[in-house]
Parts: sequence; C-alpha cells; structure tokens
Amino acid sequence: MTNNTTKVPKEKNRSPVVALCGGVGGAKLALGLYRVLAPNNLTLVINTGDDFEHLGLFISPDIDTVTYTLADKNNLETGWGHRDETWNFMSAISTLKGETWFALGDRDLAIHVERSRRLRSSELLSNITGDIAGNFGIDAQLLPMTNDPAATIILTSAGHLNFQDYFVRMKCKPVIKQVVYDEASVATPNPDVLTALNQAELRAIILCPSNPFLSMDPILAVPGIREAMVTSPAPVIGVSPIINDQAIKGPTSKIMSELSLPSSVQAIAEHYGVLLDGFVIDTADQDQSNEIHTSVMSSNILMNSLKDRENLALEVLAFADAITTKKN
Amino acid sequence: MTNNTTKVPKEKNRSPVVALCGGVGGAKLALGLYRVLAPNNLTLVINTGDDFEHLGLFISPDIDTVTYTLADKNNLETGWGHRDETWNFMSAISTLKGETWFALGDRDLAIHVERSRRLRSSELLSNITGDIAGNFGIDAQLLPMTNDPAATIILTSAGHLNFQDYFVRMKCKPVIKQVVYDEASVATPNPDVLTALNQAELRAIILCPSNPFLSMDPILAVPGIREAMVTSPAPVIGVSPIINDQAIKGPTSKIMSELSLPSSVQAIAEHYGVLLDGFVIDTADQDQSNEIHTSVMSSNILMNSLKDRENLALEVLAFADAITTKKN
Repeated sequence: MTNNTTKVPKEKNRSPVVALCGGVGGAKLALGLYRVLAPNNLTLVINTGDDFEHLGLFISPDIDTVTYTLADKNNLETGWGHRDETWNFMSAISTLKGETWFALGDRDLAIHVERSRRLRSSELLSNITGDIAGNFGIDAQLLPMTNDPAATIILTSAGHLNFQDYFVRMKCKPVIKQVVYDEASVATPNPDVLTALNQAELRAIILCPSNPFLSMDPILAVPGIREAMVTSPAPVIGVSPIINDQAIKGPTSKIMSELSLPSSVQAIAEHYGVLLDGFVIDTADQDQSNEIHTSVMSSNILMNSLKDRENLALEVLAFADAITTKKN
Repeated sequence: MTNNTTKVPKEKNRSPVVALCGGVGGAKLALGLYRVLAPNNLTLVINTGDDFEHLGLFISPDIDTVTYTLADKNNLETGWGHRDETWNFMSAISTLKGETWFALGDRDLAIHVERSRRLRSSELLSNITGDIAGNFGIDAQLLPMTNDPAATIILTSAGHLNFQDYFVRMKCKPVIKQVVYDEASVATPNPDVLTALNQAELRAIILCPSNPFLSMDPILAVPGIREAMVTSPAPVIGVSPIINDQAIKGPTSKIMSELSLPSSVQAIAEHYGVLLDGFVIDTADQDQSNEIHTSVMSSNILMNSLKDRENLALEVLAFADAITTKKN
C-alpha cells in the first residue's frame, strides 16, 4: 500500500457524513472516506463490543484500528496494531509468566496505558478517544458507540465467550450458536452519536464493510442509534463485507454458515433489512442484484490499494447522492 | 562489569543474613552478598518509600532495581531499569502528549503492568514481589518493608515533594529542609521482615550503602523494624555510602549539607547511632575511625567490578562474624 500522506483532491461538498465501522475491513473504507471528504466532515461511530480488560489495561481494539489507520500509523505487516512495532514488553511479560495470547506491541501500549489511566480517573471513553485522535492530528470525529460497558458475548460450542477470547485466543474455532448484545442493548448511546445522526444536513450514513454480527450489530443494538438512522432523511448505505460468497477477511462466512445463513450478499442485505436505502456489492456478485430488496450499486469493493479505498469512497458517496436526488 | 552468571564459590555457612537496601548503591552490595552466600540464605528488606503511581501504573523503583540486579537483567548503560532496553512506548506516549519525565522502557513496563494489575486485584505487594523474583529465578527472599503506602515526602525550597518528583523530575535541585516518613511511621511492617529479623540463628543484619535519609530511614521508620534489629543478637553492620567525604553516587552529600550535617563517614555513623554494632568505611576515610562510636572496618568499598562486590560482601560477613565472636 502506498503512503497515505499523499495528497488527494478533497471533495467540495461540505455536508457531513456518518460512517459506522468496526475493525480492519471497516477501517479501510473509513480511510477512503476520510481522504476524499472535506476536513472535519466525517464522523465515525465505532464498535466497542470488542473492548476488554487485559493485563489490567482497557483495550478498545476497533477504536485503535480506526485511529491508527486514519493517522497513517497502522501496521501494514500484521494488519493490526501500530506501525514499526517492537515486542519487548511481550517478551518481558513472558518472563513474568503473564498472559501472552493477546499481543500488545511496545508502541501500541501507550494508547492502552493512557486510556486506562484516564478511565480510572472517571473520564469518558468518548473524551479520551477524541483527545487521542486529536493528538494524532486526525480531523475526523471518532465516536465510541457508547461510554458504557457493551461487551459482545458469543454463545459457542465452547460456552459463553468474550469477543477477544473467541476471536484471538480461540482463533474463531468454536462453533457460534448466537451472538448476544445484552450490555449494548441497555447501554446509553454516546450523545454525540445521536447528534451526528440527527444533523438536518446529513449527506449519508454508511455501514462500512465490517462483520455485520460482530461489528455492526453491537452498534445497532445500542438504544436510539438504529432509530436515529431510520428517522434521518439521509440515505443509509451498506457496503458488503462479502465478495463472491466469501468474506474478504475474518470469520464472516464461517459465522453465517454456523447461524444457518447463506454466505451471500443477499443474506447480508436481508440481515440489515429496512435499514438500508442502498447496498454496495462487488461486481462478482452482480447476479444477486435482483434478489436484493433495496437499490444496489456494484463495483470493485476489494480495496487492496489506497487508491481503491478512495475510489470506493467516492463511488459510495455518489451512490448516496443519487439516492437522495431520486427521493426528492 | 563482567557477566554475573560466572560461578563464584558459595559460602558454607548456612546461617541466614538480612540486608536492608534501597536503590542502585545498595543493590551492588546486595548482589555481592547474593553471590557469595549459600542459596536461599539472603533476605533483602527493600525501601518502598520511593514507590509512586505514574501513568496509572504502580512503580516500585527500589524493588525493581534489586530484582533486575540479582536477576542479571539490570541495565549497565543507564544504571537503572532493564538491560537491552528500547523506548518505543515512551515515544508513543510523547505522541499522545502523556507525561515523559519518568522514563519507562519497553521491557521494564512488564513489571509495572503486572504489579499494577495484581495490586488492583487486592494482592499484596509482598506476594507480587516474591513471585516476580521467583519468575526471574532469584533464590533470595525479596521483601518490601511494608504492604502499606509509605511515601517519603521531602520538604524543600520548592514545597512538599514526592520522592520521584524531587529525584527525577526536579533532578534533586530543590534544597531539602526535612525528609518526612509520616506514612512509613504508621505503616504495618511486612510480617516476613519481622520473621526474618527475629530468626534466632541470624548471622548478620547489614545496612547496604544506600542513602541513609532516602533509602534506609524509611525502612527504619516502619514500626517494629528498628526494634527487631536492636533486639536481635545478630550484629548490625552499616556500610558507608560515602568515600572521601563524597557520596559514591546520588545526592547524599548535597542532602547532608542541606540538613547541616558534614558529609563524612563519622556523620553517617552518628546518624545510625546505637543501631550499629559495626561500621564499614573506605580506607580513604580511615583517619575518622577513632571518631566513630562503634567497631570500624576499613576496606575498598567502591565496588566498581563484580569481583569488588563479592569481595566486599565477604569482608562485611567476616567483620560481622568477628563481632559476634568478640561478643560471646
């Protein structure tokens, strides 16, 4: 991938855009949007269902992935964590017989230590997240979906698991029976999320190509967020995390199969249901267009290069604008 | 300094030895004792008056110095911290505009993170310290003086300062008016310290050449510790942190001058008073021998090399044994 500090012509449109995103896949489109939109025009609503306490530190994996990605500090070798990372802390933890199944790089540790310190001083996750983004020079609004605990619990063949236990420690091997958002469903939404979604001049609400069950549904489970999306006059555009009936990355296909859903763009669109005003799929899945209940745009959605990310962002925005025009 | 994994002939004597120590200077003699004594024959009572919370982590500088030194993991370049250290965490903390005046290396962080996690789970500092020493393969007993908070407060020209603020952040520049052990003086002693001091077969109690005001007095301020030392039939041997009227390292001379004490071995011996059954000074200070109220041994106490540390340890033990023989 090319250096993302390369300049790209910014869009002239000043109407704000909200995007919901989770981890690595979602962050790719978030970066595309961030690079093509005018400064301070993008709000990202980020899943915190994966957050957990580890080694006494509060870890927010999706917030950190988005932060590092937008700051051009994401690790291109591992696909997660901080760039130019070293692992001497982990090596020393191993000497102390501490837990080593979740790798924390030396640079990455700073964000966890600072977040933990401030959370223990009763500061809000939303303020901490905003300050950290600001310190990285990011001119987008990064919003955790809630400041409350909202752990996603996965009911599996191996019992009830926290997300990271399932995803990292057990490498997604247990068979999923159900994904449960009990905490998210009683959490208070981050008020800035509702403010962002309720903006009268909102241009689009985009569901980034993150895992629907593990990254998007926790956000949609927080009271008020789905409702604000439905109520907004702005078009809600989904982007498929599946190409050619396979997940681009991660366990989406495996999970869909375990939940007795076909691993198809049609099934994803049905899963989001009436929430969607438009759905973006890969040209490889064009044959399913007619089975999808909403407006469909097909394109190259793989986003290998930085240019791919920018192009898809521009196409998604144009698709949203076209839906708005049609509606009016 | 040579590699301290080199084998050294262990003493045959199985009578246990207790040594009180603080930071870097004290740890040198502690290492000498550790290397010449039979395995599991050394108990170190360690100052926790310098302990503090920083970046939300609980730091115990003297415990860590002793641990790393005995584990042969101490940083020989900086004189503090972990060997082969990297500083990527600090660099990332700087990006986040976190506090950078107290340097925490990437490897060193592990001990702070693990200690903080366990202290927040209501585990005792003494258990944590013992486990960490065990994980490093240390076969000596490392005992914090107390499990209670016992912060040394320094009254200075710049106001009341915590130890690390005075020592690291302000580089010992403020003029000291008084050193206050209010917390230590009401702390409950670590019961293992009293058990160690009360052993009937105890061979010697050694005050390592640490700063008397900043490292030794906090330990002696904890109720019961000084009394147990006075009561013990074992000889109490002090080792001077001063050579030729100058501190070997650190601010001892400056502090003594600010407290209107001459920076001399005689003043140190007087400061410890009746506690001492013997005092070890450098041959450079031999002319003061007659002014010292207790038995005096003079030797080379600089301890540049590992061999120096072992030699001084053997001499201090022989001196203690001679005092015991004379008493009986």
